[in-house]
Amino acid sequence: MYSGVINELIEQFERLPGIGHKSAERIAFYLLENMHSDEVSKMASVMVGAKEKIRLCECCQNLTDVSPCSICGSAKRDKSTICVVEGPEDVSAIENTHEYNGLYHVLHGALSPIDGIGPDDIKINELLLRLSDGDVGEVILATNPTVNGTATAVYISKLLSPFDVKVTRIAHGIPIGSDIEYADKITIIKAMESRREI
Amino acid sequence: MYSGVINELIEQFERLPGIGHKSAERIAFYLLENMHSDEVSKMASVMVGAKEKIRLCECCQNLTDVSPCSICGSAKRDKSTICVVEGPEDVSAIENTHEYNGLYHVLHGALSPIDGIGPDDIKINELLLRLSDGDVGEVILATNPTVNGTATAVYISKLLSPFDVKVTRIAHGIPIGSDIEYADKITIIKAMESRREI
Repeated sequence: MYSGVINELIEQFERLPGIGHKSAERIAFYLLENMHSDEVSKMASVMVGAKEKIRLCECCQNLTDVSPCSICGSAKRDKSTICVVEGPEDVSAIENTHEYNGLYHVLHGALSPIDGIGPDDIKINELLLRLSDGDVGEVILATNPTVNGTATAVYISKLLSPFDVKVTRIAHGIPIGSDIEYADKITIIKAMESRREI
Repeated sequence: MYSGVINELIEQFERLPGIGHKSAERIAFYLLENMHSDEVSKMASVMVGAKEKIRLCECCQNLTDVSPCSICGSAKRDKSTICVVEGPEDVSAIENTHEYNGLYHVLHGALSPIDGIGPDDIKINELLLRLSDGDVGEVILATNPTVNGTATAVYISKLLSPFDVKVTRIAHGIPIGSDIEYADKITIIKAMESRREI
């Protein structure tokens, strides 16, 4: 029971991920009641501007406003290692550790037959192209430890077998700082399987 | 570790209520990866357009694109009753019951000395103005049953005592469909105090 303009605003916010009807209402009223016109205009122009400027890096397929992106273009990065991830947010998470110095490859998804997402729907061919020049020594498969992420890792590892490249998978186990008693069964099984001598 | 453009986009979404850094990231990537440019432009223009068009109803102070708003301007509404609420979302919640046929008055907040919100910061004077012509027979105080909402209701009821108008407060008690065993103490006390013969 709002005027059409308010309803339209609420509907726009409801389209965003993780925003239900109540949150969309709250955001709409915040915009109308608490934000200045300038702030709203600024937000709108940042949205449109980002959408215009951001594209995929020609090399790693990460989101960037310059291509090649700052990581692929950096002389300081180890170009012999490629870490394959599902999305740009994974690149961010790994970069935040400041421990990895290689390159990335962003798949933009994972194989999911149930959703009709096959090898041509994610950036697998672009990865193979990068390996063809022979400079890469290791590909780390850092897709998520979900059904789809694991299937994607297995699929890519098979595709890479003809190449002279080491293919590794990030380790799965009990997260640091958590309790074994609260870990799920599969994680405990993986952690036991991957045990190492100390 | 994103390009400046992406960081700026994430920061904009973080400004919205209920959106933390992770959610803002998720929304930003959704916008960049899953939305078409047209959809982003549409969302941006709806935001700017709503902010331009929406103002406060000269009568009830609710958000509207026409003033007086559709409720105040309706010949079918009972103009002798005014329901006082804190925000536009309360009007929406009450309208959705389809049981109330009077008018509203939106305060845009509640008295909160701790936040420095006094009587002049919310739309109390506008309410008194509406009562001065003598057509109103009842004012229903439907502010929230919080400390601030209750204080606001008490404050307004005192201001209204010189007027020849019935002042009522919505009832508080056990919500329909819920269990007494899960109700908080204050709610149970209120429900006991407000008991009625059946």
